[in-house]
Amino acid sequence: MATKTRERILDTSLALFNVRGEPNVTTNHIADELDISPGNLYYHFRNKDDIVEHLFARYELRIEEALVVPDARLPTLEDIWLRLHVAFECMWDYRFIYRDLVDITSRNRKLRLHFSRILKRATANAEAVLRGLGASGEMRASRAEIEATAHNVLLVTSFWMSYNAVLGGHIEREATDLTRGIYQVMMLLAPFLRDAERLHLHTLAANYVK
Amino acid sequence: MATKTRERILDTSLALFNVRGEPNVTTNHIADELDISPGNLYYHFRNKDDIVEHLFARYELRIEEALVVPDARLPTLEDIWLRLHVAFECMWDYRFIYRDLVDITSRNRKLRLHFSRILKRATANAEAVLRGLGASGEMRASRAEIEATAHNVLLVTSFWMSYNAVLGGHIEREATDLTRGIYQVMMLLAPFLRDAERLHLHTLAANYVK
Repeated sequence: MATKTRERILDTSLALFNVRGEPNVTTNHIADELDISPGNLYYHFRNKDDIVEHLFARYELRIEEALVVPDARLPTLEDIWLRLHVAFECMWDYRFIYRDLVDITSRNRKLRLHFSRILKRATANAEAVLRGLGASGEMRASRAEIEATAHNVLLVTSFWMSYNAVLGGHIEREATDLTRGIYQVMMLLAPFLRDAERLHLHTLAANYVK
Repeated sequence: MATKTRERILDTSLALFNVRGEPNVTTNHIADELDISPGNLYYHFRNKDDIVEHLFARYELRIEEALVVPDARLPTLEDIWLRLHVAFECMWDYRFIYRDLVDITSRNRKLRLHFSRILKRATANAEAVLRGLGASGEMRASRAEIEATAHNVLLVTSFWMSYNAVLGGHIEREATDLTRGIYQVMMLLAPFLRDAERLHLHTLAANYVK
């Protein structure tokens, strides 16, 4: 069935992009892997960029869900850790986007606008959480520090996988890799916390990392 | 003269890679831009990867220089700012490497080993500076916090230009862009500092940013 082939093309493309990197995969590779003719592939998608756009739309739905603020209550450090975990899992599943982020978003204006909107929304979220921790007295930070830290949270989150890949060269996932990324993000908050919360964060981290 | 052509090929490649991104430039583009034949280009370099390797070697010399620790005296916040500035200038001049870092380093094992060595050396440098500030009592940080922060310093430094490009989509340099990157790195240290130093850093930042 046509719908089934379409979905299979998307799933296979995602798997190949994630393992080899999107710039290193052609529509011929994808057709080969699926054992279909290139003509059959072109019946479903105009070109590779068309496939990338469809995968991006899937990613966008999932990350938007991860960015929904659950309720008005101030998040605890455990809540923040958990929400980061959900975001990191989604990013891992679509890691090809992050691997070649500048190249992919500069080739396609629509993807760039969508990605930059997601980034801005996530930064605003991070800022709100930090402001909340400041208002409740759990941390001490100036307005400028909160703004800068929100950007650093998104920077470390978005590029952790790339940093890790360049350092260690893993292509396959190691169980601890994402946890270490979450840890690096949490460590951006640690020094702002009051002593009791700072200690609590380190205990939390010790339970998760290694 | 042959040497001159060789240098002109490297300079032109660097300029094209920086503006368009290395994956979007072919040896034909480079030959065209120089108004020489592809055959003449291949007389000097085997292929595009050969050019990338030679440019990387140039970059490596410059960044190694930037990473030399000037003397045994504990660096002031101004010293740190200045050293970051030198590093950011070098990274800007070879920004094509950072734009497609994972792709370039995963295609070429030699470049990956060299880059990861630079990264490790820079992380060790950052850790030494942070430990120094801790020992002199200017900042308060645990061993785990210092380790994590050194990695975050390198992560923010290495991917600031990519983050900025995705957010704003600038290809051409804006005068404030690198300064804002340095500011983001310095803000990683701010919360660890004693009140007097923290205030001093904010005054310093206010003079440089915007």
